[in-house]
Amino acid sequence: MPFDYIPNLLHPEKTKIVLLIIDGLGGLPLSPGGKTELESASTPNMDRLAAEGTLGQTIPIRPGITPGSGPAHLALFGYDPLTYAVGRGALSAAGVGMSIHPGDVAARGNFCTLDSTGNITDRRAGRISSEVAAPLVERLRCIQLPDVEIEIRQVKEYRFTVMMRGPELDARLKDTDPQITGVPPFPVQAIVPEAELTAKLFNRWIAQACEILADSPQANGVTLRGFATDPALQNYQDAYGLKAACVAVYPMYRGVARLVGMDVIEFEGETPEDEFAALRHAWDDYDFFFVHIKKTDSKGEDGDFDGKAKIITSVDIALPALLDLKPDVLMITGDHSTPAKLRSHSWHPVPFLLWAPAYHLSDEQTRFGERSCTLGGLGTFPAVETMSLALAHAGRLTKYGA
Amino acid sequence: MPFDYIPNLLHPEKTKIVLLIIDGLGGLPLSPGGKTELESASTPNMDRLAAEGTLGQTIPIRPGITPGSGPAHLALFGYDPLTYAVGRGALSAAGVGMSIHPGDVAARGNFCTLDSTGNITDRRAGRISSEVAAPLVERLRCIQLPDVEIEIRQVKEYRFTVMMRGPELDARLKDTDPQITGVPPFPVQAIVPEAELTAKLFNRWIAQACEILADSPQANGVTLRGFATDPALQNYQDAYGLKAACVAVYPMYRGVARLVGMDVIEFEGETPEDEFAALRHAWDDYDFFFVHIKKTDSKGEDGDFDGKAKIITSVDIALPALLDLKPDVLMITGDHSTPAKLRSHSWHPVPFLLWAPAYHLSDEQTRFGERSCTLGGLGTFPAVETMSLALAHAGRLTKYGA
Repeated sequence: MPFDYIPNLLHPEKTKIVLLIIDGLGGLPLSPGGKTELESASTPNMDRLAAEGTLGQTIPIRPGITPGSGPAHLALFGYDPLTYAVGRGALSAAGVGMSIHPGDVAARGNFCTLDSTGNITDRRAGRISSEVAAPLVERLRCIQLPDVEIEIRQVKEYRFTVMMRGPELDARLKDTDPQITGVPPFPVQAIVPEAELTAKLFNRWIAQACEILADSPQANGVTLRGFATDPALQNYQDAYGLKAACVAVYPMYRGVARLVGMDVIEFEGETPEDEFAALRHAWDDYDFFFVHIKKTDSKGEDGDFDGKAKIITSVDIALPALLDLKPDVLMITGDHSTPAKLRSHSWHPVPFLLWAPAYHLSDEQTRFGERSCTLGGLGTFPAVETMSLALAHAGRLTKYGA
Repeated sequence: MPFDYIPNLLHPEKTKIVLLIIDGLGGLPLSPGGKTELESASTPNMDRLAAEGTLGQTIPIRPGITPGSGPAHLALFGYDPLTYAVGRGALSAAGVGMSIHPGDVAARGNFCTLDSTGNITDRRAGRISSEVAAPLVERLRCIQLPDVEIEIRQVKEYRFTVMMRGPELDARLKDTDPQITGVPPFPVQAIVPEAELTAKLFNRWIAQACEILADSPQANGVTLRGFATDPALQNYQDAYGLKAACVAVYPMYRGVARLVGMDVIEFEGETPEDEFAALRHAWDDYDFFFVHIKKTDSKGEDGDFDGKAKIITSVDIALPALLDLKPDVLMITGDHSTPAKLRSHSWHPVPFLLWAPAYHLSDEQTRFGERSCTLGGLGTFPAVETMSLALAHAGRLTKYGA
């Protein structure tokens, strides 16, 4: 659970908190002396908030440690990712709306292409479309095994999630995806003896899946990875006294939000405008809103510096719709850095903007960017402390001790 | 051991990391508004690295805690000194090249002068030279005791290290040095009952030593302190996947390097030029280099502000020889502060310079100094996180979690 001193300090308030996570926000200049993606973007609205509010930079996990998306979000939600390891399977299951519980075992699956000797020729089955994959997932639904319930859902394109529920399951299993072609998938192997039974069940499931898929030339095999169970995280309401909602386009972020007990808001579209409209729609029903912008990270991973800057600009253009709701606390940050220069997540500190007019102590910074955040009033702090700052600036925490 | 999440993230690379520790680097102005030793030194090379790279400041142990040299180095190597207490005796033994193992008990010894009643008149035996002390150490080698092996080596001048190896030894013993003159040395006393036998053995050793030294008027007694055993630290290779080398003039720093599994490079001379030449010689054989400059600390302890600044200047003048080797990551910092004004180690944060052109995010600072480091992009961070930053900026760490 998050910091155990917080629940005793909670003070009921009607204030509204927004945590706007611009995925992979932090960046690097392409050449020495240059600007980062955020510094290059046009952000008059964020700059005004920066001038009025206070800046800082977060360490997502520990200095030098590059986080995956799951751990990075857990940290911002207050769950130390070094304590709470949440496997990809659990995130994925929650992301597609499956109710995963402690003891259930879920895995991420890919359709793949196997040759006549059983070797993988394409790890993503030619990236078949969602339309092609949907009926295949349907056909796999008929697989039954003794003493377990099995649930399977399509994620997107060639990806699916499969979950087993039953007594004595154990998620300590190795991935079957060999990460290369020209070899067969690994069998599911138990890492500890307690997981032998679960390994056997998943191997039987895979064998039956391959039989069912035999007549499907591109997607005639499957690989499974990220076996995981529900991490039994304390929910947001108990941890922070907040009724919390998630506005996110991508399943994985909806998943991590569900695992901490947020409601996931359903909406149409995927632009910042669409997300802020969904936020407005849910505004009266919740205290806390996690709003997730994905495309900055995708552009960063593509090495598209200008594209990433443009997405940031587009968020800034849409921002007035959010500000019109008059949040008491608005935090704008990233879950981690994804510098286009590196085409990957990185460990660099992440720019953080806190705007809470009733309480913030304005610093001397007037622009939202990596270098100004270095000099901001919040200093450099662990991402896992974000929720304490949010609650305090929302007037929702009382004094510790007399 | 260092952070247990690191070994799973290690990614093989051929990058080279240099950690240049300028001992006691941090300082204080002599008068309000003045410059520190580092700020007064002429450091065009370090300033260029500061402008290109990124600055920060480390907390050696915890805010307000002044570290000894051993703990301060352990922290920079990633071993939290509050968890891993390494006694002076173990450091000293490793420093003079003794193979100390878990269970062995080593102590730092001083020759001292005793008057006819057994009271100490000089705690350092008139600071006798190494030449005078060497034959005395030789004579003490003949002392034998039942069931233990005894090893003794001269350190420098009036200092030596003595180590016992045998069954059931225990290092939980009190120092015999009373730290004042006019009183006799304390007997060796056990802090816990398990150490009674070891106390008895060391007391017998001291008695025999005093008999042997009776005809040596200046050095007719000994004191022992810092009783310690090998701390069994996880070695650098396992902790970080790094083949590591130490370039240091003083035994104690070579000792702490040996305790974490670094190879100690032998070389002639003791100037920064000599040390960087030794570095060049070893360059192809290692991944990580700990280079130690001692005299900044000595000048600080002497209260010699200008002398300390001059040593820093001399390091800067020699620096191009190091830069010619093209390290992938260069970190320049101190193990702690030793302000000439205080004539001692202090707890102040320590300036830290990180230069790693492939990955660093340049901040707005253009000089290497205490005040600029306060404003640096790395923020203020625990020294114990240094190695994670080093590995990340060397491209040697993969992502944590999916």
